[in-house]
Amino acid sequence: MTNLGRLSLNTATCRPYTLAECVDAAAAAGWGAVGPWRDRVQEVGASTAARMIADVGLRVSSLCRGGFITARDDDTAAQALTDNRLAIDEAATLGAHELVMVVGGLPASYELMHMPHTAADSTDKNLVAARQRVADRIGQLVPYARDKGVRLALEPMNPLFTADRGVLTTLAQSLAIAGDHAPDEVGVVVDTYHVWWDPDLHTSIARAGDEGRISSYQICDWTLPLAADTLNSRGFPGDGYIDFPTITRWVAEAGYIGDIEVEIFNTAIWGLPAAETVRITSERYAELVLPYL
Amino acid sequence: MTNLGRLSLNTATCRPYTLAECVDAAAAAGWGAVGPWRDRVQEVGASTAARMIADVGLRVSSLCRGGFITARDDDTAAQALTDNRLAIDEAATLGAHELVMVVGGLPASYELMHMPHTAADSTDKNLVAARQRVADRIGQLVPYARDKGVRLALEPMNPLFTADRGVLTTLAQSLAIAGDHAPDEVGVVVDTYHVWWDPDLHTSIARAGDEGRISSYQICDWTLPLAADTLNSRGFPGDGYIDFPTITRWVAEAGYIGDIEVEIFNTAIWGLPAAETVRITSERYAELVLPYL
Repeated sequence: MTNLGRLSLNTATCRPYTLAECVDAAAAAGWGAVGPWRDRVQEVGASTAARMIADVGLRVSSLCRGGFITARDDDTAAQALTDNRLAIDEAATLGAHELVMVVGGLPASYELMHMPHTAADSTDKNLVAARQRVADRIGQLVPYARDKGVRLALEPMNPLFTADRGVLTTLAQSLAIAGDHAPDEVGVVVDTYHVWWDPDLHTSIARAGDEGRISSYQICDWTLPLAADTLNSRGFPGDGYIDFPTITRWVAEAGYIGDIEVEIFNTAIWGLPAAETVRITSERYAELVLPYL
Repeated sequence: MTNLGRLSLNTATCRPYTLAECVDAAAAAGWGAVGPWRDRVQEVGASTAARMIADVGLRVSSLCRGGFITARDDDTAAQALTDNRLAIDEAATLGAHELVMVVGGLPASYELMHMPHTAADSTDKNLVAARQRVADRIGQLVPYARDKGVRLALEPMNPLFTADRGVLTTLAQSLAIAGDHAPDEVGVVVDTYHVWWDPDLHTSIARAGDEGRISSYQICDWTLPLAADTLNSRGFPGDGYIDFPTITRWVAEAGYIGDIEVEIFNTAIWGLPAAETVRITSERYAELVLPYL
């Protein structure tokens, strides 16, 4: 039987389902871990969530997510730091060593995403400065996270999201920020959807491995045409254009031995029973990922 | 009066209009150049097009476009090279020193874009190999282009288009391919829409300038939400998230003294009279670009 023990179910993949339902679906299929989002953890409380997951013998691969730390004004920045410290607390209680950090887009744009005609006007477009603020605020969070035994896992995002969600776009850029801190303090997330296009991907994955900074390997495919809500335009591995065997081999050669987390935002997939989503993913994993690990 | 002499009207910005109409609109507004697409040139023939443009005292900033050279099979590749030689001929006749090269996406995907459910299945997902084929075929085209006095201008594209349109995503990657050839043989296009998110943008623009390889500076904004057809989801400078003053300053500091070409794919803009599109662009240029040149 195929060994699915390194697979982890990110709860965003089965968004309509509770943490308990996600945990059950993953455990029933022989997966080894779950990667919960904070909303699903908060519904039951982090301690209860930790017990639910441990009771069925699963690991916690990561907690999603902290971040959104690009604000320009002090008040918003302070609020963001407070919320990130809370996320670090939750990760610690949950037993999640990795807190995924989606750092945020150009300031003001995220809050105003639903008002597109005013969003761009009210945005501070200084991308260089926004990125510097990310580096600065990661530095402010590191001591707190270190004390709690939680690593901040910087997630570079597809440039599709630079404006409104994540000003970090490459692993190299994320590693540059991580480099100011110890490897067990700040890591990076290798999410195929976000990094597959990067001409320096092989080099950057190797470097992340050498430095001991690969916090997570997430699998999700780039599909076309993009969905109307581009955030939710992702597919099962194999449904799109990403070369999973090659990228998986690079990650394995970089020495990564952790969980492979499945995080797919897709409204059609959210319409499936969790067990069916897990079944399809298991098949794709067995074909496109596992042989290359 | 604002000096608009470095502005060039790419005919894709006024897509419903003939070359003659584009030339008239640009000349009437005091712009210095046009950047025609091949279809608009072929409608009248390259010699006539050259005369039409010269008669009103405009320059030709570039010809759009060659490329789509990622095919895996020999027949398709040979056809692509033949078509690119024809594009080089047209550029030479037109007096365009720069032939913009949109190199193509993963093979099979472009042809099958209108059949999304089969596209991914029939695509060769080996991105590394596709990029190597681009480098190889640029090498095959260079002698022909050199003889005609035409530079191949590699256009890195936003990763939004890696799968189906352009496997080159960064200036650094494009400069690496260009580096096998002389600066007057292979250059790079700095199109704000495609490169604005790049963490290495400043460095890469400076390097492109040092090497004398900036073939074109194109301005166009990243707007949200993306249009249903993501190809046509671009805006006038100022309508989106791009920091034009900063990028323009980097381009100027890199020593670029050529035309600033306006290439905007947007169905709403295509509904405007050409003169109105030119008027709006002139205003935005005067505010966001010209002061930083």
